[in-house]
Amino acid sequence: MNLLLKEIRHNPLLWLLGFVPVVFVVQKLKPEAHSLLFVLSVLAIVPLAALLSHATESVAAKTGDAVGSLLNATLGNLTELVIALAALRAGQYMLVKASVAGAIVTNALFMLGGSFLLGGLKHHVQEYNRLSARIQAGLLFLAPVALLIPSAISAADSAAQAGLTQKVSLGLAVLLIVTYGLSTLHSLKTHRELFASAEGGEVGDAPWPLGLALVTLAGVTVVVALVSEVFVESVQKAAEAFGMSPAFVGFIVVALVGAAAEMASAFSGARKNRLDLSVGIALGSASQIALFVAPVLVLLSYVIGPTPMDLQFWPGAVVMVLISTLTASLVTNGGRSTWFVGVLVLMVYLIFALTLYLLPPRPQ
Amino acid sequence: MNLLLKEIRHNPLLWLLGFVPVVFVVQKLKPEAHSLLFVLSVLAIVPLAALLSHATESVAAKTGDAVGSLLNATLGNLTELVIALAALRAGQYMLVKASVAGAIVTNALFMLGGSFLLGGLKHHVQEYNRLSARIQAGLLFLAPVALLIPSAISAADSAAQAGLTQKVSLGLAVLLIVTYGLSTLHSLKTHRELFASAEGGEVGDAPWPLGLALVTLAGVTVVVALVSEVFVESVQKAAEAFGMSPAFVGFIVVALVGAAAEMASAFSGARKNRLDLSVGIALGSASQIALFVAPVLVLLSYVIGPTPMDLQFWPGAVVMVLISTLTASLVTNGGRSTWFVGVLVLMVYLIFALTLYLLPPRPQ
Amino acid sequence: MNLLLKEIRHNPLLWLLGFVPVVFVVQKLKPEAHSLLFVLSVLAIVPLAALLSHATESVAAKTGDAVGSLLNATLGNLTELVIALAALRAGQYMLVKASVAGAIVTNALFMLGGSFLLGGLKHHVQEYNRLSARIQAGLLFLAPVALLIPSAISAADSAAQAGLTQKVSLGLAVLLIVTYGLSTLHSLKTHRELFASAEGGEVGDAPWPLGLALVTLAGVTVVVALVSEVFVESVQKAAEAFGMSPAFVGFIVVALVGAAAEMASAFSGARKNRLDLSVGIALGSASQIALFVAPVLVLLSYVIGPTPMDLQFWPGAVVMVLISTLTASLVTNGGRSTWFVGVLVLMVYLIFALTLYLLPPRPQ
Repeated sequence: MNLLLKEIRHNPLLWLLGFVPVVFVVQKLKPEAHSLLFVLSVLAIVPLAALLSHATESVAAKTGDAVGSLLNATLGNLTELVIALAALRAGQYMLVKASVAGAIVTNALFMLGGSFLLGGLKHHVQEYNRLSARIQAGLLFLAPVALLIPSAISAADSAAQAGLTQKVSLGLAVLLIVTYGLSTLHSLKTHRELFASAEGGEVGDAPWPLGLALVTLAGVTVVVALVSEVFVESVQKAAEAFGMSPAFVGFIVVALVGAAAEMASAFSGARKNRLDLSVGIALGSASQIALFVAPVLVLLSYVIGPTPMDLQFWPGAVVMVLISTLTASLVTNGGRSTWFVGVLVLMVYLIFALTLYLLPPRPQ
Repeated sequence: MNLLLKEIRHNPLLWLLGFVPVVFVVQKLKPEAHSLLFVLSVLAIVPLAALLSHATESVAAKTGDAVGSLLNATLGNLTELVIALAALRAGQYMLVKASVAGAIVTNALFMLGGSFLLGGLKHHVQEYNRLSARIQAGLLFLAPVALLIPSAISAADSAAQAGLTQKVSLGLAVLLIVTYGLSTLHSLKTHRELFASAEGGEVGDAPWPLGLALVTLAGVTVVVALVSEVFVESVQKAAEAFGMSPAFVGFIVVALVGAAAEMASAFSGARKNRLDLSVGIALGSASQIALFVAPVLVLLSYVIGPTPMDLQFWPGAVVMVLISTLTASLVTNGGRSTWFVGVLVLMVYLIFALTLYLLPPRPQ
Repeated sequence: MNLLLKEIRHNPLLWLLGFVPVVFVVQKLKPEAHSLLFVLSVLAIVPLAALLSHATESVAAKTGDAVGSLLNATLGNLTELVIALAALRAGQYMLVKASVAGAIVTNALFMLGGSFLLGGLKHHVQEYNRLSARIQAGLLFLAPVALLIPSAISAADSAAQAGLTQKVSLGLAVLLIVTYGLSTLHSLKTHRELFASAEGGEVGDAPWPLGLALVTLAGVTVVVALVSEVFVESVQKAAEAFGMSPAFVGFIVVALVGAAAEMASAFSGARKNRLDLSVGIALGSASQIALFVAPVLVLLSYVIGPTPMDLQFWPGAVVMVLISTLTASLVTNGGRSTWFVGVLVLMVYLIFALTLYLLPPRPQ
């Protein structure tokens, strides 16, 4: 506990933690001040993400990058899962799908590209484990295939496919979850050594003891979930006030804030020349959302949703997911990167963001 | 001949050869027992494929993996060619195209993925010749380009393209055959050494003498062709009885049984850690169908078909061929594999199969 | 000057320079003899391209391949820029777009494939710098993404997107130019050493002194621009006389002649086993057109065009650009090539050319 307080005193970023209670107080007193709540909740999520990042790194220092990446991805995606569950209960399937597709794209492009750029600005050329990156990119590649194939095949005969889509989605959901399970078995059990780091990489700050790190992880995750809920409630209204289209909000803003925690870990790993950790978090998080969170939501929709949800996304979303995974695949093929590789990946993301931003306010 | 009999006595699988005469007898006596004939012909093809596999391996042991792969692909694809020719004569161009596209997809995904999985379960990490794999994957990549471009370009003006498609198809058929010829020149003549195996790899059983192997090859191929014909006649009716959609039968069932012979060779190569042989058979067989069998069928349709056949496939088939070759390309890029790489490739195939299986009974 | 004359006397190809004045004389006297002017201008451009190639190589010998490639790409693309500017002033946006897309495809496929083929016929296996090739292919990959995403995303709601496309195009143009600027900074400044050649490679002829080379570069570039204008004026009419479709002329003929200068440099580099120079020219030239020439034309259309031009291409063109960059990416991934890799890339180009040639005379 002393260690935690010392950390907070020395790191000015963590002073922002003061906004956490402010968020809850303002929500109680002025629940209709959406723009204010939006800004406050973003300010509160940032230091929480930083804390989460340090805690996860401390655990990773003890367990190796593979387990650390998995941990990061799982805990980071809790936020996305919480958001999506709220929307699912309300039957807002469009919002669920937009946030899922946006999270895949944001992880595979913004987080990966940002890591390459930030790491590359500090280190001239960075190396990372290409075999593990290739396998993770391959895993991610299943996502657009699963989203694309059903609509491509059934385009052949347009009619009589309403009930069909539902059956196909259910089958695909099971296939994807099985694949995700096997991938975990592969990377943590049978072929653990392939996912070891290419370079040593020194952890800058002294790692916390395991107990403190685990307790912080658990506690901060809960607080992040609570603040996220305030964020979700306020974001749509605030977006209108700031003049953003709903598609932009769903794909970009929600996804960026939802991924803030993992992003802090990934970027700090890249700065410390531990690019394996960064690539692992970015691709691992993207494939976890695609192959675990999304199919679980489909299955859960049978239990808690008003009607079953399918896996049919609007064509623009499928194309964006396809381009994202193709970019991630091509880029991580080589195992070396410089700052410009990061610029390339970020540009693909900016092209998406720009187009979504300028869209008239209807799709999604 | 003694050697052959000894082989049959020691290998329980080969006892299934007893079903070969049964197939012909039942066909004579009860030609309308489709479900029975279907099951019998599958049971008869399996041991024939195993025999073919051993004979081909014996030849390959004498000639090196490159010639061995080519031989495997050529002989294995005889089955597909026989099937397609029968359908071509009857003017059933939809069936011809479905079986061609299905064979490409099955070879590039199921055979490749199965080899990675079976080999990877026995050997921890397997290495193979990435340069030759990359060239073969590149060759295969021409297939979706040739199928995609004409429809993509002519989509610009929809009318007045009936006669056009025919001319384009004819030109593309010639281009593809020329490319296939040049690829053979390249891999067997000018750059033979690039296609040499990466690792030694011991052939488990003692190879047969060349004479016996060649005679077995020729004889068994003929028998396979005869049994295949029974299979094709019965499969459609049997499928209905078992409740499968025609698209599923054309793409998956026919393709799987048609490729049984090469599959036996590829899988046994993978188990013996000769992954170069497996990758060579899988990709070589797929590109032979795409770049040789398919264009030859187009040319032959001018001679033996009721009207000329074109190269225009339904969109779902084009997307599946494109995804398959892209997957094969990305996956074979690295030259190393584990069991999980096999799982990934097989999952893409399963996504196709599941969707086709659940399709309502009309397209194809 | 003496050196230049000696060069001309010893190189029979340069005797074709005699056609340069003939072009201008015939244009003055018989401006309506389109077919004749077309043939004459092609004959005149070839030796000019050869001169340009030798001059550029002499500069490259002093400055290294990276600067040399950039120089080549810039000067070579002046021709394309001149052509496009003339069409832009006339408001012929369809022609501008066809020539831009055609130039990307021709550089990425024909020039790259031709270099691999010509180099591979002379040298058994050629190696080149895969990291720099991969970064250049990644840069090029932004082009289809920028062309594809706006139409894919806005397909969601078809109406009310007329004004939108214009705003998106403007934003994308700025993004692409910024990326191009950063890529120059990366390859010439911060990571210059990554773009160094993999192999030594001897320059065959003695290089010219820097002064002569630079003067020749400048002078010949101007003459090429003048002859190009004659070529553009005559090509459309001549094409009709020779029975080619306008789509074929815009995509293939104009692009091939427009790229003649760089092609001469790229091919001669490949013959001298300096494949890094060839790959650098081919991919660098393609990405310069996609990320610099095309967006600059969009911006200039606000100043000199009758109405603003957007970045929306017809679907066939987008698919061709996508396939081209994907092919270039997959092929240059390995850093080794043989003649057959060149055949593969050229075949993709031939499939495009054949289809465009057989098209009925309307789209583009």
